[in-house]
Amino acid sequence: MKQKRQNVYKSGHTGYNDLDTMRHSAAHLMAAAVMALYPKTKFGIGPTTENGFCYDFALPVKISESDLPLIEKKMRELQNLGYEYERSVLGTEEAIKRMIKSGQTLKAELLDDLRKTGESEVTLYRSGEFIDLCKGPHVKNVTEIGPFKLLSVAGAYWKGDEKNAMLTRIYGTCFPTKEELEKYSWQQEEAKKRDHRILGPQLDLFVINDDIGKGLPLLTPKGTVIRNEILAYERKLEREAGFTEVWTPHIAKNDLYKRTGHWDHYRDVMYQPFGIDKETYVLKPMNCPHHYMIYASRPRSYRDLPMRLSEPGTCYRYEKSGELGGLIRVRALTIDDSHILMRENQIHEEFNRCITMVRKMFAAFGLTDYWVRLSLNDPSDAVKYIADANVWKKAGRMLETITKDNKLRYSVGTGEASFYGPKIDFMVKDSIGRSWQMSTLQLDLFMAKRLGLTYTDESGSQMHPVILHRGLTGSLERTIGILIEHYGGAFPLWLAPVQIALIPISERHAPAARESAQKLRSRNIRVEVDERNEPMGAKIRDHTLQKVPYMGIIGDKEAASGDISVRSRSGENLGAMSTPKLLKRLEKELEHIV
Amino acid sequence: MKQKRQNVYKSGHTGYNDLDTMRHSAAHLMAAAVMALYPKTKFGIGPTTENGFCYDFALPVKISESDLPLIEKKMRELQNLGYEYERSVLGTEEAIKRMIKSGQTLKAELLDDLRKTGESEVTLYRSGEFIDLCKGPHVKNVTEIGPFKLLSVAGAYWKGDEKNAMLTRIYGTCFPTKEELEKYSWQQEEAKKRDHRILGPQLDLFVINDDIGKGLPLLTPKGTVIRNEILAYERKLEREAGFTEVWTPHIAKNDLYKRTGHWDHYRDVMYQPFGIDKETYVLKPMNCPHHYMIYASRPRSYRDLPMRLSEPGTCYRYEKSGELGGLIRVRALTIDDSHILMRENQIHEEFNRCITMVRKMFAAFGLTDYWVRLSLNDPSDAVKYIADANVWKKAGRMLETITKDNKLRYSVGTGEASFYGPKIDFMVKDSIGRSWQMSTLQLDLFMAKRLGLTYTDESGSQMHPVILHRGLTGSLERTIGILIEHYGGAFPLWLAPVQIALIPISERHAPAARESAQKLRSRNIRVEVDERNEPMGAKIRDHTLQKVPYMGIIGDKEAASGDISVRSRSGENLGAMSTPKLLKRLEKELEHIV
Repeated sequence: MKQKRQNVYKSGHTGYNDLDTMRHSAAHLMAAAVMALYPKTKFGIGPTTENGFCYDFALPVKISESDLPLIEKKMRELQNLGYEYERSVLGTEEAIKRMIKSGQTLKAELLDDLRKTGESEVTLYRSGEFIDLCKGPHVKNVTEIGPFKLLSVAGAYWKGDEKNAMLTRIYGTCFPTKEELEKYSWQQEEAKKRDHRILGPQLDLFVINDDIGKGLPLLTPKGTVIRNEILAYERKLEREAGFTEVWTPHIAKNDLYKRTGHWDHYRDVMYQPFGIDKETYVLKPMNCPHHYMIYASRPRSYRDLPMRLSEPGTCYRYEKSGELGGLIRVRALTIDDSHILMRENQIHEEFNRCITMVRKMFAAFGLTDYWVRLSLNDPSDAVKYIADANVWKKAGRMLETITKDNKLRYSVGTGEASFYGPKIDFMVKDSIGRSWQMSTLQLDLFMAKRLGLTYTDESGSQMHPVILHRGLTGSLERTIGILIEHYGGAFPLWLAPVQIALIPISERHAPAARESAQKLRSRNIRVEVDERNEPMGAKIRDHTLQKVPYMGIIGDKEAASGDISVRSRSGENLGAMSTPKLLKRLEKELEHIV
Repeated sequence: MKQKRQNVYKSGHTGYNDLDTMRHSAAHLMAAAVMALYPKTKFGIGPTTENGFCYDFALPVKISESDLPLIEKKMRELQNLGYEYERSVLGTEEAIKRMIKSGQTLKAELLDDLRKTGESEVTLYRSGEFIDLCKGPHVKNVTEIGPFKLLSVAGAYWKGDEKNAMLTRIYGTCFPTKEELEKYSWQQEEAKKRDHRILGPQLDLFVINDDIGKGLPLLTPKGTVIRNEILAYERKLEREAGFTEVWTPHIAKNDLYKRTGHWDHYRDVMYQPFGIDKETYVLKPMNCPHHYMIYASRPRSYRDLPMRLSEPGTCYRYEKSGELGGLIRVRALTIDDSHILMRENQIHEEFNRCITMVRKMFAAFGLTDYWVRLSLNDPSDAVKYIADANVWKKAGRMLETITKDNKLRYSVGTGEASFYGPKIDFMVKDSIGRSWQMSTLQLDLFMAKRLGLTYTDESGSQMHPVILHRGLTGSLERTIGILIEHYGGAFPLWLAPVQIALIPISERHAPAARESAQKLRSRNIRVEVDERNEPMGAKIRDHTLQKVPYMGIIGDKEAASGDISVRSRSGENLGAMSTPKLLKRLEKELEHIV
């Protein structure tokens, strides 16, 4: 189960839509059921998650997933009672007393925290016997909660702090209709089968090694084929769109990040600095400042703009060890990064250019369903953003216009901007309907001025360029992880680490197989000859499990005619064909990537 | 002036050949001349260098390069006296007394150091008035010293330690013949013109930026073209030779390097470790352990061997800040690295395979003159090498056989091995005759056992593979630096950042130029259209200075006929040709890289 990135304790349950409201009510219903079944339970918090809800309990007994049907049954019983969600307002002090009296010490602690922030009143929601400290909103009646399902049990530290007690968290979800719940359940089952942390090692795509370190996956030869194919495709897109590649090292002086503001706004994810001679260096958390220094290396004129510098640059960002796993969340991430330095009147065209690239790339990956989040600053959060309300407003309006002009479906995410500017973040649905954040296009009207980056305009004046930060997928590692799950490991031909396995039926057919392989290899087809001393059936099974797109069988008949009997990984028999004909077929299939 | 990498003070003057002997005698002759001109001089040491000799003096006056002719003149006068180099042996204590008496306190200090190591006798060499503490050997008579030249004056800390006094170092050289000396002088002049630290920024190939840090060059779009072309060529060689690429992060847990022995043998060049959570990490100084962890990620069989893992992996190694400059000596170096894990009976074939690759690559770079150093361990240095005399002997003999079988010119470098095994190091001469160390092939019979890397052999036994470490050029950054100087910035077409500049004579010819450019670009030719409002002559001069291989002029005649008037950067007029014909010519020239 994926949970929203933010700390559950902090994020609380603000910003509800209808589905969230219903799910939050379902969390209360679950808590009421738990109270009925385990009366001595102390209640923590029960927010919604990306795909459902959860609630943290200090239970008097240890429960496991086998207990969930019992809780579900109780939830249904309570739902059948048809009670309302009743809101009431109470003085904070009074609420604390009441919670302590009823033994709800965790709730009392939360109320005490609120009291310290100066809250004199709080809202409570009653649903049947169960009363919860809660901002709301809720559905009116418990019968309005759609079909629900409890999903899993996990441990969770009270308030997300590992110094606190470990509570029991129960995850569940609910949907407006049974069909939607069933689709979600199917998606969850399917996701388990496609889990890249399981498929990755099975298909020998990457290695996590504790001697190297957490969140630092190594790509094997097969995984590296996928990485290099994605990069080659991106380079082609970039060449066509007039980008030029640069290369920069993975460290820089720490002072540079103080100048850019990263040290103030981004320090939490930066690694510990280390000394070289009398200077202090740090692993780069992003590529931007390195690219700016290339821009700044010589005087620039308006004729040089837009300057589109691009690099697949590996950055190092801290992630909590508990959040690491596989390729999706890592500590070393390669951003397919670009910085476009330009004049203000070029913003619109350059965003259009990047949006076109993103669309082409999604199409190449077979990702057809996407929308964007227009990530704006939160004007009330002065600490998180560079301060200049007018510039923020202007930049936000520009991005909204661009989003509309490009007919992108969008919603606004207030407080989701970078510290230096608003963004267009692309959310894509994979083949089983899950959403992932991928590409990002960020408008930066601040940094060039801050770092003194300039160009000379037609009149000879020194001007500051504006900057578009572009992450094409955002992170190559994450993208490989997502694609493993999106394709369920069955990569399309252009990404498949092995494109065709040639299987000689017996030893005497091996020379013919090797000869064909040589011909295919010389045209850059990734071919493997399986000369193991195993029955043909076993070999076909192995390559099918390895999801190799094509298999070519060579026996007596084929060796005599010079043909290969070709079958697909889905088991389709494509008939016998000569090596040149096979090659033509494969090359045609590879051509479609535009 | 390049000096041998080792500390001059430590390396002393052992291992002389005839040329070295003569040059060392010339150093004494120079010292005698300095003594005659500046009688109060105190003498430090006077070893040979890669291309000549030097001597460190504590001079009573400040001298500059304008004083060198005077010293040269005095050297000639003394040489005309025709004295012998006379060797004598003296008790160390007696020698110290004599040096103190004559005011040679630096020499006395050196003698005192020798006394502390237990040396009871030392050798002195007298030549005319000048007596020097010296192991020898020397030429018999001062007239045997060939044509010499003093080159430069520099500061040098006494004993190479920056806590000591700064002495004056004078560099000189001498050769058996006048022709050789003149060739060397020409080479030095030519080297100055080709200095990549000057050409690099002039041609906009790389940027050194103090905000990023010392020894951390950034490659600009043009420099990155060269890097990517080299990498693409190497990948082609590797694909043909059956290598597979991997990708690994730039940090690892420090403990890993303790296990491999790098922490003991290589710590001086490793950076300061830094903490992540409760673990200690460090920038990787080499790629080997990362590759081993990929090997170790699953059980391996003899059928998987040889396994050839390859990666252009950026490593971080400490270099003193005074030794940094440009691309040749850097702190971030990308090793075009490979590790071949194999059985012992595959060693010979795999070395042959790598030697063939190295030869092809040198040919692609037009490097035709090379020899190898067979770098062996120094059996007397127990600290520097993994201890197992028999394994070292065996490995050294293997490499010698391979070197001979491949008919490589070689000399033995005792004490030049890696801590884990002997190497074949390739030394190449560039277009002006200077030698550079590039490729390295290292045999490692230790590490697999130490790290527990195994494979199952035919009989089911667990065996340790042996390892070939291969650096194809050794360092991409260094190679780009060497190639800038080798080509004097005039890169061959396949490496040239811009391959052809199209120059419309006036604004009305620009559309025709753009159209041709588009056609060339679609076939991956790197083309630039120069639409600046400058006279044609100025544009041709600029692109010639930028060493763009071809220029295409488009005026009225060309725009009408659809042709382009093509000229080379050397000024040759290649006549008018259509865009398809030009494309054919360019593609033919690009084909030759095999």
